Amino acid sequence: MIPAPEEEIVSRQRYLQELLAEAGIELALIRQAADLYYYGGIIVDGFLALGPLGEPLLLVRRPQHRLQEQELPFPAAFFKDIKEIPAILGQVGLGHDGALGMELDVMPAALYRRFREQLYPQRPILDLSPLIRRLRMIKSPFEISQIKRAAHILDEVLVSAVEVIEAGVSELELAAVLEYRLRLKGHQGLVRTRGWNLEMFFGHVLSGASGNQAAYVDTPSGGTGFSHGFPQGAGTKLLAPGEPISVDLAACVNGYIADETRLYVVGDLPDPAWEALTLVEKLFTLYEQEARPGVMPGDLYHLLLEEVKAAGRQDQFMGFGQDRVLYVGHGVGLELDEFPIIAAKFPYPLAAEMVIAFEPKFFLPGIGMIGFEDTGRITPDGVEWLTRSPRQVWQL
Amino acid sequence: MIPAPEEEIVSRQRYLQELLAEAGIELALIRQAADLYYYGGIIVDGFLALGPLGEPLLLVRRPQHRLQEQELPFPAAFFKDIKEIPAILGQVGLGHDGALGMELDVMPAALYRRFREQLYPQRPILDLSPLIRRLRMIKSPFEISQIKRAAHILDEVLVSAVEVIEAGVSELELAAVLEYRLRLKGHQGLVRTRGWNLEMFFGHVLSGASGNQAAYVDTPSGGTGFSHGFPQGAGTKLLAPGEPISVDLAACVNGYIADETRLYVVGDLPDPAWEALTLVEKLFTLYEQEARPGVMPGDLYHLLLEEVKAAGRQDQFMGFGQDRVLYVGHGVGLELDEFPIIAAKFPYPLAAEMVIAFEPKFFLPGIGMIGFEDTGRITPDGVEWLTRSPRQVWQL
Repeated sequence: MIPAPEEEIVSRQRYLQELLAEAGIELALIRQAADLYYYGGIIVDGFLALGPLGEPLLLVRRPQHRLQEQELPFPAAFFKDIKEIPAILGQVGLGHDGALGMELDVMPAALYRRFREQLYPQRPILDLSPLIRRLRMIKSPFEISQIKRAAHILDEVLVSAVEVIEAGVSELELAAVLEYRLRLKGHQGLVRTRGWNLEMFFGHVLSGASGNQAAYVDTPSGGTGFSHGFPQGAGTKLLAPGEPISVDLAACVNGYIADETRLYVVGDLPDPAWEALTLVEKLFTLYEQEARPGVMPGDLYHLLLEEVKAAGRQDQFMGFGQDRVLYVGHGVGLELDEFPIIAAKFPYPLAAEMVIAFEPKFFLPGIGMIGFEDTGRITPDGVEWLTRSPRQVWQL
Repeated sequence: MIPAPEEEIVSRQRYLQELLAEAGIELALIRQAADLYYYGGIIVDGFLALGPLGEPLLLVRRPQHRLQEQELPFPAAFFKDIKEIPAILGQVGLGHDGALGMELDVMPAALYRRFREQLYPQRPILDLSPLIRRLRMIKSPFEISQIKRAAHILDEVLVSAVEVIEAGVSELELAAVLEYRLRLKGHQGLVRTRGWNLEMFFGHVLSGASGNQAAYVDTPSGGTGFSHGFPQGAGTKLLAPGEPISVDLAACVNGYIADETRLYVVGDLPDPAWEALTLVEKLFTLYEQEARPGVMPGDLYHLLLEEVKAAGRQDQFMGFGQDRVLYVGHGVGLELDEFPIIAAKFPYPLAAEMVIAFEPKFFLPGIGMIGFEDTGRITPDGVEWLTRSPRQVWQL
């Protein structure tokens, strides 16, 4: 168990308090598991209450027993029903009036209405999430070290996939072995996403035609899965010679995620796949040259897209047919879909200590998905890759 | 791939339409993955639009390509941005005015506000989820058959746990093997929950003192996990002789969940554990005698609680210390936290074809968790258990 350093938790709270003051939010109530972990160092059934000044208060419904044994760097109070919250906060001088800030992108509408109509009918409620997501883009040395732990086990497991891959093994069998190995190495299992219905289980292990199947989640690859009940990811299709086999997995250690995609083939890939792969490598080189603090993600996106267009492959880029996604990289950290997004209109420039999964991928009709993904850290001197297994097609 | 029968999808829609008419909802917009699967037989990034009369329309943002290859028993339309939705629905005569129904218990507040303020500023928005959850309580023969598939692989894997359990194996190692076996047998991986922050990954594999650790999720057992980033479930604790080892897992096949808990011990349990187990068995017998269509869950809950109180064990029941949960059973189906709940104030009587995970559990100081869980179907003649592995302590 490696907790986030106490002084780091406090400093995260201070940064948020500055933005609360700027935004005119008098009381932030943080409830989402990833956000609670980030701002409180702890995950409970409850809320972290924080005003623009002073100390926070952790409101805990559950578990009470464990919390009493644990040292917290700030006070906590217990409650049973959320209707007790205004009185508890009133007693400690937290938020008598002014705007409330809550995580409106993830908070259920019914709970929002209860706060607005019953608990705080006089106070406007503003969306706290844009502030939180903006601050969480920049990772601390502690956070980078945790993402490196995730990246390390992911590297090991993706390299070890060569021991399992052979013709006749199913996508599901391959996925299950890799998931098992990740678990034994300390993958926490759960991979958090922020988007509604952005469901995910480890990732996507696909081959040949499966690789071109878009799913209902906003990711370039998808796959069919093996049931209508969860139509994404590995299916029952058997691995076959000459087809690209793509393993796109997320590892999560101590809450922190790394994301990586590698390619394998039994035998050899068809020529068009190798040609697309040359372009993938060119895009990685371009990204490494251009991704720097201060660069706008939209400019970077267009630069990469120009290269793709010059090669006449824009219709195959980042998805199949009309199901292409409009980004080529996404932040990772406590969630798989963090900021920044390398997309046309993302509003903030790149900055040092952002951690981004860069995943240029092509979807070739009749062949499948060709591309790699690596998780890297933006530094003043360029990209430091945190996932580091050989970026190659493993031929078996 | 076994789809839900087409006529069943249509009949589910008809039942919902009746409740829409009663509730004065002119347009239901269904978006949650489990609800879309239930009412559309398909999971997409989009909405199923349904009025109290007539045919539904499936609004699809993604995936478009796959959908064009698939036969649907109702029309579909594509969109890119949700602001197009009112115009598309207006063209097919779906909902010009009157109340909107949306899944407010799971829909993010920000999206709710966009609908209320921008898309449909003139229309009240009512919570659709109570209607959906009420209808989804009663399972069809097709649904029961899918839950049986999940129960069957769960039985097999829980029995096979005896091959792995020995002193010195860690909770995580045991959990990882069982998860791997479930995956190979067709577990879809993802186990859906409805509650906000009700995070879950397969379930909880715990031993001795771990069994008494409440977590941040509303479940009787919890465990510490092995990181602050996901503090629940199996930890790094090693299995040791004389401690109760509890394996509480959910299996999910074709979207449908079964939930089961079994106990194991290396050597023998201490006497107080066996005494608590006698009471667990008595509670199962009582439940089998009393759980019938027409019975109020609150009455059943109190009857069971009286038995617990008569044995002086109310402080150990359904959780440790002040972290006890206030139910003894919960519906399962497409989600792990479905209706009905066997709790004091649940408003609907039991009915035939409800499927309930019944889990009387005691938390003994210094010993750990003692209890079983089985998933069963309510029939006019009593409970038919769908999970059927021997309900015993496996001594190794």
